[in-house]
Amino acid sequence: MTTWEYSSITPDDLAIDTLGPARITSPLAPLLDARRTTEHYVDAGDRVLLDDTAAGLKSRGVDVEELPGLEPCGPRREIYFDPSKTRAGIVTCGGLCPGLNDVIAGLVRTLTYHYGVRRVVGFRNGYRGFISSYGHDVVELSPESVRDIPVDGGTFLGTSRGPQDPGEIVDCLEQMHLNVLFVIGGDGTMRGAMEIARVVAERGLRIAIVGIPKTIDNDIPFIDQSFGFQTAFSQASEAIRSVTVEAKSTPGGVGLVKLMGRHSGFIACYASLVRSDADAVLIPEVPFELDGETGLLHHLRRRVSQRGHAVVVVAEGAGQELLPPVGRTDASGNAKLADIGPWLKERIGDSFAEAGMETTVRYVDPSYIIRSVPANPYDSVYTVRLSQAAVHAAMSGRTSMVVGRVRRRFVHIPMTLAVSRRNQVDPHGDLWMAVLESTGQPWRFGEDSGAPTRAPHS
Amino acid sequence: MTTWEYSSITPDDLAIDTLGPARITSPLAPLLDARRTTEHYVDAGDRVLLDDTAAGLKSRGVDVEELPGLEPCGPRREIYFDPSKTRAGIVTCGGLCPGLNDVIAGLVRTLTYHYGVRRVVGFRNGYRGFISSYGHDVVELSPESVRDIPVDGGTFLGTSRGPQDPGEIVDCLEQMHLNVLFVIGGDGTMRGAMEIARVVAERGLRIAIVGIPKTIDNDIPFIDQSFGFQTAFSQASEAIRSVTVEAKSTPGGVGLVKLMGRHSGFIACYASLVRSDADAVLIPEVPFELDGETGLLHHLRRRVSQRGHAVVVVAEGAGQELLPPVGRTDASGNAKLADIGPWLKERIGDSFAEAGMETTVRYVDPSYIIRSVPANPYDSVYTVRLSQAAVHAAMSGRTSMVVGRVRRRFVHIPMTLAVSRRNQVDPHGDLWMAVLESTGQPWRFGEDSGAPTRAPHS
Amino acid sequence: MTTWEYSSITPDDLAIDTLGPARITSPLAPLLDARRTTEHYVDAGDRVLLDDTAAGLKSRGVDVEELPGLEPCGPRREIYFDPSKTRAGIVTCGGLCPGLNDVIAGLVRTLTYHYGVRRVVGFRNGYRGFISSYGHDVVELSPESVRDIPVDGGTFLGTSRGPQDPGEIVDCLEQMHLNVLFVIGGDGTMRGAMEIARVVAERGLRIAIVGIPKTIDNDIPFIDQSFGFQTAFSQASEAIRSVTVEAKSTPGGVGLVKLMGRHSGFIACYASLVRSDADAVLIPEVPFELDGETGLLHHLRRRVSQRGHAVVVVAEGAGQELLPPVGRTDASGNAKLADIGPWLKERIGDSFAEAGMETTVRYVDPSYIIRSVPANPYDSVYTVRLSQAAVHAAMSGRTSMVVGRVRRRFVHIPMTLAVSRRNQVDPHGDLWMAVLESTGQPWRFGEDSGAPTRAPHS
Amino acid sequence: MTTWEYSSITPDDLAIDTLGPARITSPLAPLLDARRTTEHYVDAGDRVLLDDTAAGLKSRGVDVEELPGLEPCGPRREIYFDPSKTRAGIVTCGGLCPGLNDVIAGLVRTLTYHYGVRRVVGFRNGYRGFISSYGHDVVELSPESVRDIPVDGGTFLGTSRGPQDPGEIVDCLEQMHLNVLFVIGGDGTMRGAMEIARVVAERGLRIAIVGIPKTIDNDIPFIDQSFGFQTAFSQASEAIRSVTVEAKSTPGGVGLVKLMGRHSGFIACYASLVRSDADAVLIPEVPFELDGETGLLHHLRRRVSQRGHAVVVVAEGAGQELLPPVGRTDASGNAKLADIGPWLKERIGDSFAEAGMETTVRYVDPSYIIRSVPANPYDSVYTVRLSQAAVHAAMSGRTSMVVGRVRRRFVHIPMTLAVSRRNQVDPHGDLWMAVLESTGQPWRFGEDSGAPTRAPHS
Repeated sequence: MTTWEYSSITPDDLAIDTLGPARITSPLAPLLDARRTTEHYVDAGDRVLLDDTAAGLKSRGVDVEELPGLEPCGPRREIYFDPSKTRAGIVTCGGLCPGLNDVIAGLVRTLTYHYGVRRVVGFRNGYRGFISSYGHDVVELSPESVRDIPVDGGTFLGTSRGPQDPGEIVDCLEQMHLNVLFVIGGDGTMRGAMEIARVVAERGLRIAIVGIPKTIDNDIPFIDQSFGFQTAFSQASEAIRSVTVEAKSTPGGVGLVKLMGRHSGFIACYASLVRSDADAVLIPEVPFELDGETGLLHHLRRRVSQRGHAVVVVAEGAGQELLPPVGRTDASGNAKLADIGPWLKERIGDSFAEAGMETTVRYVDPSYIIRSVPANPYDSVYTVRLSQAAVHAAMSGRTSMVVGRVRRRFVHIPMTLAVSRRNQVDPHGDLWMAVLESTGQPWRFGEDSGAPTRAPHS
Repeated sequence: MTTWEYSSITPDDLAIDTLGPARITSPLAPLLDARRTTEHYVDAGDRVLLDDTAAGLKSRGVDVEELPGLEPCGPRREIYFDPSKTRAGIVTCGGLCPGLNDVIAGLVRTLTYHYGVRRVVGFRNGYRGFISSYGHDVVELSPESVRDIPVDGGTFLGTSRGPQDPGEIVDCLEQMHLNVLFVIGGDGTMRGAMEIARVVAERGLRIAIVGIPKTIDNDIPFIDQSFGFQTAFSQASEAIRSVTVEAKSTPGGVGLVKLMGRHSGFIACYASLVRSDADAVLIPEVPFELDGETGLLHHLRRRVSQRGHAVVVVAEGAGQELLPPVGRTDASGNAKLADIGPWLKERIGDSFAEAGMETTVRYVDPSYIIRSVPANPYDSVYTVRLSQAAVHAAMSGRTSMVVGRVRRRFVHIPMTLAVSRRNQVDPHGDLWMAVLESTGQPWRFGEDSGAPTRAPHS
Repeated sequence: MTTWEYSSITPDDLAIDTLGPARITSPLAPLLDARRTTEHYVDAGDRVLLDDTAAGLKSRGVDVEELPGLEPCGPRREIYFDPSKTRAGIVTCGGLCPGLNDVIAGLVRTLTYHYGVRRVVGFRNGYRGFISSYGHDVVELSPESVRDIPVDGGTFLGTSRGPQDPGEIVDCLEQMHLNVLFVIGGDGTMRGAMEIARVVAERGLRIAIVGIPKTIDNDIPFIDQSFGFQTAFSQASEAIRSVTVEAKSTPGGVGLVKLMGRHSGFIACYASLVRSDADAVLIPEVPFELDGETGLLHHLRRRVSQRGHAVVVVAEGAGQELLPPVGRTDASGNAKLADIGPWLKERIGDSFAEAGMETTVRYVDPSYIIRSVPANPYDSVYTVRLSQAAVHAAMSGRTSMVVGRVRRRFVHIPMTLAVSRRNQVDPHGDLWMAVLESTGQPWRFGEDSGAPTRAPHS
Repeated sequence: MTTWEYSSITPDDLAIDTLGPARITSPLAPLLDARRTTEHYVDAGDRVLLDDTAAGLKSRGVDVEELPGLEPCGPRREIYFDPSKTRAGIVTCGGLCPGLNDVIAGLVRTLTYHYGVRRVVGFRNGYRGFISSYGHDVVELSPESVRDIPVDGGTFLGTSRGPQDPGEIVDCLEQMHLNVLFVIGGDGTMRGAMEIARVVAERGLRIAIVGIPKTIDNDIPFIDQSFGFQTAFSQASEAIRSVTVEAKSTPGGVGLVKLMGRHSGFIACYASLVRSDADAVLIPEVPFELDGETGLLHHLRRRVSQRGHAVVVVAEGAGQELLPPVGRTDASGNAKLADIGPWLKERIGDSFAEAGMETTVRYVDPSYIIRSVPANPYDSVYTVRLSQAAVHAAMSGRTSMVVGRVRRRFVHIPMTLAVSRRNQVDPHGDLWMAVLESTGQPWRFGEDSGAPTRAPHS
């Protein structure tokens, strides 16, 4: 990433000057202490290594072979597939996410221009596209045919939820003489891809299965940020702005936005930080209580009293423990969530009514509007680079893996690992801390934080 | 950053499946080999460590004390300054960059809401604001007064270039009983801040000098991306789109855009990747030749023949070796660059004329339009977090340092180190590779790459 | 508006050349004839007068005194109020609409800079702001305090629905010694303003009551376009784009957007024309049937069969005759509408299920997101000019009137007239015709149009 | 346009109430009087007719046959060309303007879907596309091939300046058996089209020549607003915002923007009204002086003294009388203008230097960036309707005419009339008045207006 050398830098070069010993207890201490963890936010001995590459560490005498490390993405001099005879396929599965068309276009361009692959096909409507009973035609893809597709959101190839029989899928791959399959989708899709790779291996075939992980919730483990996430939270911040305007324009107005985030509240956190308009952010990682002196409802009523309005941002997966369970799953196998939005709207309205306070609650659920926008410039660049990485991996014969960016380097991650965990907002980390600072809400509604009740932010 | 544990993951968990040994030479080999480096892009033994924290490495037996590591940002339980008695100042220096007002607002909010600091002042027009002969008043800052400033680009406090006498600046700090000074600016500004810190130390004062590094060129060493950079390259991509439209609409049209980048071509590279419209990207890190079979001009004439138009993106610092030197410096002490834009416009026009080809060259220099836009949502969030980090550092008594994000963690960096090097595009790295793939240009104009001349990108 | 003279132009100058007599029946004839009106779209003798000014007609010998004409807006040399002693008030009522803050800012600036009026106050939360029992303070307004408010949507002053006692309002005006009151609101608000003006007259007071009519539905009679309308339909077109992306990405996808338009379908019509993505547009002015060969549902099923997806745009007031009546009114006195959106979503889903066709209906109701955005540049300019017009009118002593633009000239309209009618989409006019051409839908669903069923639009 | 009847409204219904006679001289009187015209802005007897239709006037007894009236656009029951045998061509000429691709797409869609025309071709690069020596292929156009072109600005067909031999063009039309030619372009293009129509008539051919007038300067006579104008001034307002940010951020900063407008200052006026940031607007219609107490330079220095910065917006055609004449014409036959931008930048800089005042003048010329953007939603709808109107006209056999919107109705205008005059900003009209109010500048720099020097706007 840089052309100069780290090697000349010593730990001393990185020492930070201080004016003297820190002896005053921070006004944040009540908040920090309330986290009930001995692990304070910044551990005194913690350090971010200047050079975390294997080569860098090795040069300092560390035995890096023993350390778990991810293989970097990129072109190899020797590859596995003969490009002139390679046939590649692409499929998109699951819900929409900004950047899907960019990934498709990036794959097609890199395969064609870079490696000279002559045939690339798209399968329509997710895994269904491989199953003959659905009768979908495949789509021949060329740089020309995909040139303008990133202008629109969504996926040019269509999508669907749910698995299909892996045997039938591999039958189709065999019949079409495909050597490489790029699978773009979420957790469930990657589990499906692992099944496909398993059947491929059982049959002794030579077909690389490479995933580009898609999740608008940004919940892929290890990975810095999933593609489309920046576009999504930028768009989500517009919805927060809308309800803020509504709330401010009405006597005792309360704005309520439900955002994506089944298990991870990243969109809610980032979108709330954009203009710092929110008075409360609710995420799946941090349970909350409605009632009582330290509950959400009291917080909102106080804010409305203090500055005339209040704004709440709730991730769809937050507060599920408070709602009656739904007990069903969708076609992708995800448990159906109870709908926190309308429920919360009603509870807020009731709470103000009981307290004899006037309010109007404006509720917005912008999820279709968020997920269907085209990628912003950042995600446009990111998906180009991600799809180049995926092509390099596939051409080199790698399989059962996904590409991603870890601490700003593109790497290969085994599919098993990618689906084994979930990235979540750390309730003890600096993102949640930034949200708390921005909203002035307690670390957790319903817990006596001991923190001073500070003035609202305007 | 995550709530689950890395510790259970072994190197084996990260091993990537392959279909078999790679025995075919990549069609990219001529391009890769032409780099004339034994260091191929991806070193076979290279790994990105799964867990690069000091704690993580320590738990695996590594002696991390010996390794250079950066101190993480964040709140400390014990701090140095008593918030109720702390007075803080803010100054912005040098050229405009998206996000300046967000940083100012973020500092004021965090100081006030978070720590309860009661007085925050802004100095007007850069370092001049401290010098009595300029007669600028200081600006009292409160969360209310800065609430709406991020809506506009630029800096609310004004700015100027060039240093001022550090003794006089410290006189002013003393007179105003300031304990903390936040300095937002580039290289030259940070050198000025180091001088201020030196005088502060010489006088035995207790004033923390904390920098928030600003560079629209993204050339700060170690740091992932400087604030405003994403906004800048997004906006820059609009200018590329404009000249592409112009070039396509005119017989033999050539579009030419000059972008920021005195020493580092990041904006040019990222903006070009947004829509992949460019046929050639020229950056300071990669010298180029105009003439000859492998030169830029021949490349452009061929593209115009093949698809009717061509688009060139040039960083302002590129090709300086081709132009007559200017030999002056600006008020910030930066060497004046010769203006590559009009010069290149003329050379392209002449080259087509000599070849008897019709052309119209449309030249755009959008720099004021780029640097004056407000921060986009990403940079808005980033600057909030950066300014929170700066306040935590200052309140803990740290000084002569800047805040930044390194591999996605916010850290403290000594000012000496921050100004000691410059971040540049690695001509052997994956960003430049992505640009080459996108434009189809040779690794370096004027060098016989041996690479096959591939078809242009439609 | 122009500096050259119309007077030299004769009817002959405007005659249009033709190649010869038109003898072929247009393929549009079935559609035109189906309108069951003898009044075909273009009447052979119809003309748009080149010069419709009173002066212009007079110069051609027309006795214009007999013709109903609207008084033009603008500054008068002699005015009624002495600016240095004038006190003005501003109030905003009813639902949000883009441009409210621009109107407030424009009024304040014109009063202050232009006329030198020294005191302008804002009343909070609509007509409530005059009623002492609500306890709202008035807001002192100055060019500085309103400088940045147009950056946000909504209304800086707050708003509320419903009338208040006109006697109490006039008490408040008297007590504050106000001479001029600007009222920004819709139908109900203007009826309230007429009551205020009546009480003012009864008491023999000298207070001008001037309205700036606000309606996001664009349903003010005579007036070209109400402020905020362009911003609103532009934003609405984004919602149509969203559901189009959703519909295209899903097997058998149907997108459904409900837009504003209680009695007038202008937003639905204009927003649908932006990208021509809609397959059906439903407006209050044109009743429709769901069932049968010529009904909406059959049309949608056919479109989905033909091109895989379909998009429906419905104005909130459309199809009310098909739904069970709600029978209540809101605080503004408007009859509550039955909610066509969810009802239609269900009917479409059922219809596909009965026909054994797969579908997913994505339904979006973006109304809060639309009405809360800031004014776009056009509406920004329009509101500046409108508020200048309102100030000129008020200062000249005019009262009980609203300002507006009729055929591109700003005019005064008596309040009685402005509330006496409603502007609606003419089902025989060119706007509806353009929609029909764009969607390929019949003139009216449920009527045998005899029109050829043409292929869908790609 | 409306469904209710005007006929019941009498002049009395339109009378405006006043509080009493206006006896106080307006503070605007010096400004109004300074216009040196007896024709004050609002003539007491002036009226905007409520109903200006021929039918409406006739019903009130006016002999409308004697009055010059424009023929309304729209579909006719009987048409001239048999659609199934009609072949149509499209050509775009001259400079870029937002909406060109929308017009092309609109024409193709209306011809194909609406009338069932089977062949539509596009000519490349303006009138050159008809001339065999240039060797351009024609482009077959279908609704599919033009579906996505409005996403980009510019013209999909390419363009060029300058006339070509009308005989050769008609040869080409004959050879290709075209019946209808749509010509999109400016003044010069329409003169060329008139030549083509003349040759067509001389040869006794049956080819309709229909124009869609294009001018980003909005200088077509009679017509409300030319397509692309709203998009252009919206985009132009961004450039004003940029230099305002620059000017505010620098000590003594002056921002200068040059905008389009060879003979008409509409873009400069509208763009300046968007945020009211400008301190001076210079247009071709109003000469100005630089020097002296009432000159531009003194005005700017005063503004910088008063509020620290100043912003100037200049139309490219303004102040030509002050610069040395260039004395050449471009390929379209337009006289080359001297470049007011850099000249003014220098004069401003010199003026401040002479006065011993610090300044930095930031100059931006955003014309390529403005004219290459895609149409905004308003222009998108407008061009759809305009192209529908053009197709109806052509199919009915009309020729040598252009379509346009006059006082919000679409009409036919003879080409001779459309090129006979130019629309300009009326220095005595309300648009210029609004600009004066917004900037606080005198009616004309260099003239002693007698108007009070009012405080600047912030």
